[in-house]
Amino acid sequence: MTITSEIELTAQLKWRYACKAFDPTQKLTSEQWTMLAESLHLSPSSYGLQPWKFLVVQTTELRRELRLASWNQGQVEDCSHFVVFTTLKTMSEDYVNHYIQQIATVRNVDVSTLEGYRQMILGSLVNGDRSSTIQHWAQRQAYIAMGTLLTTAAYLKVDTCPLEGISAQDYDRILGLETSNYGTVAAVALGFRSADDKYQHAPKVRFDINEVIEYQ
Amino acid sequence: MTITSEIELTAQLKWRYACKAFDPTQKLTSEQWTMLAESLHLSPSSYGLQPWKFLVVQTTELRRELRLASWNQGQVEDCSHFVVFTTLKTMSEDYVNHYIQQIATVRNVDVSTLEGYRQMILGSLVNGDRSSTIQHWAQRQAYIAMGTLLTTAAYLKVDTCPLEGISAQDYDRILGLETSNYGTVAAVALGFRSADDKYQHAPKVRFDINEVIEYQ
Repeated sequence: MTITSEIELTAQLKWRYACKAFDPTQKLTSEQWTMLAESLHLSPSSYGLQPWKFLVVQTTELRRELRLASWNQGQVEDCSHFVVFTTLKTMSEDYVNHYIQQIATVRNVDVSTLEGYRQMILGSLVNGDRSSTIQHWAQRQAYIAMGTLLTTAAYLKVDTCPLEGISAQDYDRILGLETSNYGTVAAVALGFRSADDKYQHAPKVRFDINEVIEYQ
Repeated sequence: MTITSEIELTAQLKWRYACKAFDPTQKLTSEQWTMLAESLHLSPSSYGLQPWKFLVVQTTELRRELRLASWNQGQVEDCSHFVVFTTLKTMSEDYVNHYIQQIATVRNVDVSTLEGYRQMILGSLVNGDRSSTIQHWAQRQAYIAMGTLLTTAAYLKVDTCPLEGISAQDYDRILGLETSNYGTVAAVALGFRSADDKYQHAPKVRFDINEVIEYQ
């Protein structure tokens, strides 16, 4: 294991970029993937509800089909691990109950002690004002997980490329999601940059920090 | 500087939780805040467009007002740094041009060489199918930055509490955003947990990893 100092965290965020070409011969080690999978698994979400499923697409055939639904971007096929982010289409009382049951199990408490929390969630997301925009809410949560994954990968010196401009409709068809309660929102390719990818040498473009962080 | 090994990254994600009570006497060092501010500044976003402003609210008076717009949650006043995430309400050609100009400046190229990229962005976000849902798009991007911030903080052993259930309308009024092109979407409190916060001892609740990560 290499060692990362705090100072290097910023350096690693500067090192990362949206990788345009992966070296198809380089694969993540199982230790690297385990840590990255855990970063998705442990990602924060509103109420802790985890309104997502992450599909890791490994077969050549599916990768080829998804590439065609991704503006033919080569990263889909050439990366080591390809993760499709899907989110809940609707939020049901059953889903909330399943989560409440999980809290009760993990914390070894009776579900009755969680009734207030359950009602709070139901009041907001199932019966309340957010129920009509639950897809947007769920997608925002998935983007927290995306940030968690991209950041953890950078600190592990693993390259990534987030893909947002994909055909979610085609992804859903290819992945058999059309009749499920989950829909594609984005994807992230992980692996190692090809030496030929010229974008790795382009200076990172950000607005001046004073344009985006203001003190009041 | 303490040293963080790769193995510890997962441990730190388990260590983090939504802090319910901060120790008001403990403040981030300037080095810690600088690294966390850089994590926001360097956060990825679609096209690199950074459709956000992060407002760091430091004055006692504003913190008190925001607390009342946040279900009276004490974290707003007791944390070390309180960051309000705001995002673009509309995406204009002027904004895109400003970004294209920044690319040209940072990479020392003529803007004319970026015309194709400019047209691609305009076609998608200003004149295209995403223009009608630009607020949702911008909010998703801000949640990448939230994930980047929460994750970096965990690795730096800094506590956080994301606040989503706030009154965005009240925040906009208090922060004088009503006539600006930015609107509040969420906030993150940063600092150090109080020894009295019993939630730090509660086991973290996540679904079984096989429920949320599937292989295809």
